[in-house]
Amino acid sequence: MSKSPLVLPKGFRFAGVAAGIKASGKPDVSLIVSDQRAVAVGVYTTNQVVAAPVVLSRTRTPSSTVRAVITNSGNANACTGEQGMSDAKAMCEQVAERIGCDESDVLVMSTGVIGQALPMAKVSAGIDQASAKLAAGETAFLAAADAITTTDKGRKMETREITLDGETIRIAAMAKGAGMIAPNMATMLSVICTDATIDPDEAQGMLTRTANVSFNRVSVDGHTSTNDTLLLLANGNGTPLSGESICLFERELTELAIHLAKQLVIDGEGASRVMQLHVFGAEDDDAAEKIAKTVAASPLVKTAIAGCDPNWGRIVSAAGYAGEAIDPEKMSLKIAGEAIYRNGTPLPFDAAAIGDRMKSNREVEIELGVGEGNGKVTYWSSDLTTDYVQFNTKYTT
Amino acid sequence: MSKSPLVLPKGFRFAGVAAGIKASGKPDVSLIVSDQRAVAVGVYTTNQVVAAPVVLSRTRTPSSTVRAVITNSGNANACTGEQGMSDAKAMCEQVAERIGCDESDVLVMSTGVIGQALPMAKVSAGIDQASAKLAAGETAFLAAADAITTTDKGRKMETREITLDGETIRIAAMAKGAGMIAPNMATMLSVICTDATIDPDEAQGMLTRTANVSFNRVSVDGHTSTNDTLLLLANGNGTPLSGESICLFERELTELAIHLAKQLVIDGEGASRVMQLHVFGAEDDDAAEKIAKTVAASPLVKTAIAGCDPNWGRIVSAAGYAGEAIDPEKMSLKIAGEAIYRNGTPLPFDAAAIGDRMKSNREVEIELGVGEGNGKVTYWSSDLTTDYVQFNTKYTT
Repeated sequence: MSKSPLVLPKGFRFAGVAAGIKASGKPDVSLIVSDQRAVAVGVYTTNQVVAAPVVLSRTRTPSSTVRAVITNSGNANACTGEQGMSDAKAMCEQVAERIGCDESDVLVMSTGVIGQALPMAKVSAGIDQASAKLAAGETAFLAAADAITTTDKGRKMETREITLDGETIRIAAMAKGAGMIAPNMATMLSVICTDATIDPDEAQGMLTRTANVSFNRVSVDGHTSTNDTLLLLANGNGTPLSGESICLFERELTELAIHLAKQLVIDGEGASRVMQLHVFGAEDDDAAEKIAKTVAASPLVKTAIAGCDPNWGRIVSAAGYAGEAIDPEKMSLKIAGEAIYRNGTPLPFDAAAIGDRMKSNREVEIELGVGEGNGKVTYWSSDLTTDYVQFNTKYTT
Repeated sequence: MSKSPLVLPKGFRFAGVAAGIKASGKPDVSLIVSDQRAVAVGVYTTNQVVAAPVVLSRTRTPSSTVRAVITNSGNANACTGEQGMSDAKAMCEQVAERIGCDESDVLVMSTGVIGQALPMAKVSAGIDQASAKLAAGETAFLAAADAITTTDKGRKMETREITLDGETIRIAAMAKGAGMIAPNMATMLSVICTDATIDPDEAQGMLTRTANVSFNRVSVDGHTSTNDTLLLLANGNGTPLSGESICLFERELTELAIHLAKQLVIDGEGASRVMQLHVFGAEDDDAAEKIAKTVAASPLVKTAIAGCDPNWGRIVSAAGYAGEAIDPEKMSLKIAGEAIYRNGTPLPFDAAAIGDRMKSNREVEIELGVGEGNGKVTYWSSDLTTDYVQFNTKYTT
C-alpha cells in the first residue's frame, strides 16, 4: 500500500453493505456505531417538504446519548406519508435491538428516489448484515462511506488529526452528493465523527456555523433536497474542549467541511468545472450571499463557465436581478485573475487568453465587486453541461 | 397567397433592414413610426443593471407625443458606460431628424451582446436605410418584426381587430425572445401598436396589469435581462375609450400578450416542450407566483419535462424550498391530467402511460396544490435540453 492508512476516531465502528435497494446492486446500507454514548447534533434541510428520516432524526438532536446512525441510499423515504414515518422508526428499532441501545438513540438518514415506499424486507436484511459486519478501521469506514452515495462518481471523505491540550483528537467525515444540491442545506447527507469531547450546546452552535460557510455555500443545481442532513457525533468522555482548544477544533472542523463541500461541487452531476465565486462590496454578508447564489444559479453563467467563455455580461447582469441593492457604477469583475470590468465600464481584455486560462484549471476564480459595502462571501458552484441534462432527463430521482 | 393579409393599425409605418451589426448579416435595425403623436407607455426590466436604451426610454414614458421606436438587435448597448448613453441618444436624434419630430419623442430599444460599444457607423447607416424604407402594410411590418429578433427561431407577432362603440380598432404586436427570459420582465423586447384612442394614465395601468399576467409569468432560463422593454403605442385621436369599451380592450390586450408571451417560451432557446403550471391553494397570488417561479426554474423539473418523465418528487420538493408557506399534508399534484399525489401521499399511477401522454403534446399541464389558501397562478416555462446547454456554451450573449 502506497497510501498511509486513514486516521479514524477511536470508539467508532462502521459497515456498508449491498441490500438490493438499488437496482444496480451497489452498496446501499451504511451503519455507524459509537461504542460509547456520543454527543450528536444535526443541521437539516430547510425544505418544507421533509422526508420521514429527517422528521425523526431532528427530534433526536441535540443529544448526549446517540449510539448509531443508520443510512440507506437508493430510496429517500420522502413524500411517503405515514408509512414512511413508521418505516424510518422501524429502521432505528432494528439497529437498537442489534447493538443493544435505546431506539431513540439511533439516528436515520435516507437518500434516493422520492415518493416510493422503502422495500423494508431488503432494508431489514441489510441492517442485519451491516450489524454483523461492524468493524473499526479503514476498510469498514470506506464501505460505510460508499454505501451512502447515489449518483456520486466517487466516495467523499475527509479525515484529520489534531493535538489539543496535549491530547490527539481525530475527525473523520463522509458525505454524498451529487444532484439536488443547493443551499440551504447543500450537503444531501454527511456524517462527521470525532473522538473529541464536546459539550452538546457548543457542538450545535459549531455545526451550524460550520454548515453556513461550507455546505450552505455550494450549489450544483439550486434544488434543495427533502433529505439533507449533516450530523456531528462526538464520543469523547474526557473534559469538554473549551477556550482556545474549542476554537482550534472549530477551525479544523470548518476547513474539513469546506473541503468536503467542495468535493460535492467537483463531483456534481455532469460537472466539468467549478466556479469559486467571491462577491464583495455588498451591503452585508447576507446580501453578498444572495447575490452569489443568484449568479451561481444562472444557467447562462453556468454554461459560459462550461464553455470557458469569459462572458462577463451574464455575470454582471445576474447580480443585477438578485434582489439585493448593488451600485452599478461601482461594479467590478475579474475572471481568472484578469480585470474585465471596473466602475461600471468594460476594460479591454484578451478573451482568448482568459479562455485558455479557464481551460487550464478545473477551478475558475470569479471576483465580483457590487458596490462599496463591507459584505462579502465565497461560494462554490458547478458548471452546467450537456452531461447534466442528459443524466437528469433519464434518471428518476 | 393562401394566408389572409394581416390587419394592421392605421397610421403606423414600419421598416426592418440589415445594417451589419449582426455578423450573420441578418436584419438588425427596426423602425416603427406613428404618423400622429401617440400615447406611449412602457414596462421595463427590473434588473438593477440597466442598459442605456432602457435608461433613456423610461424617462420618456408615459407620453402623449411619441412618434417612433427605433430598435437595433445584435448589440444590447448594456454595461457600456457613458458612451452607451450618448449612443442611445444619438439613435433617437437621427430618427427625429429623418421623420421630423422632437428627439424626445423617439423611444429606443437594443438587444444582443452585453458590454460592447455599438458600431455607430453601421447603426447610423441602418437608421438612414430604414427611414427611407418606411411603409404601411404587411411586408414592412414583418420586416420590422424580423429585425428585432436575435436567437429566436422565428418572428413573434400577434394581431387583432375588435369593434368597440361601433368603431373598428386594430392591435398589432411584435416581440423577441429567446434567452435571458425570466420574470420580471420576461419579454426581452415587445412593441404593441394600436389605433385605439387611450388616455395615457389608463394605458400605463393597463400595460402594467397586462405584463403581470403574461410576460411576467413566463420563464426560459430565469435570467432577467438588462434590456427588457414592453411598449404600448396608441395613436387614435378620437374620444378615449372608457367604461365597458376600455375593459373589453384590456381583455383583448391581455389575451394578445399571453399569446405572445407563450410564443417566447415555445421558442425558448433549446426548448422542446412547454410546461403550463397551475399553482393553487397558496396563501395568496404572490405566494403562488413565487412557488410557480421556483418550480419552473428547477433544472431537475425542467429536465424531467424534457424527458417526458412524470418525476413528481422533483416538482413537490421544488415547491417546498420556494420560501412561501405550504401545507405538505394538503399537497396535491396532477401531471397531464392524471392525479399522482393527494394530501401528501402518493397515488398509484401508470408512469409509462403518463409519459406517453406527455410525449404526445408539446404542452405539459401541471396542476400543483400547495394548501388550502386562495392564491393561484398560471405560469409557463420551457424545458431544459442539451440543445440549450450546447447553444449557450458556445454563444456569447
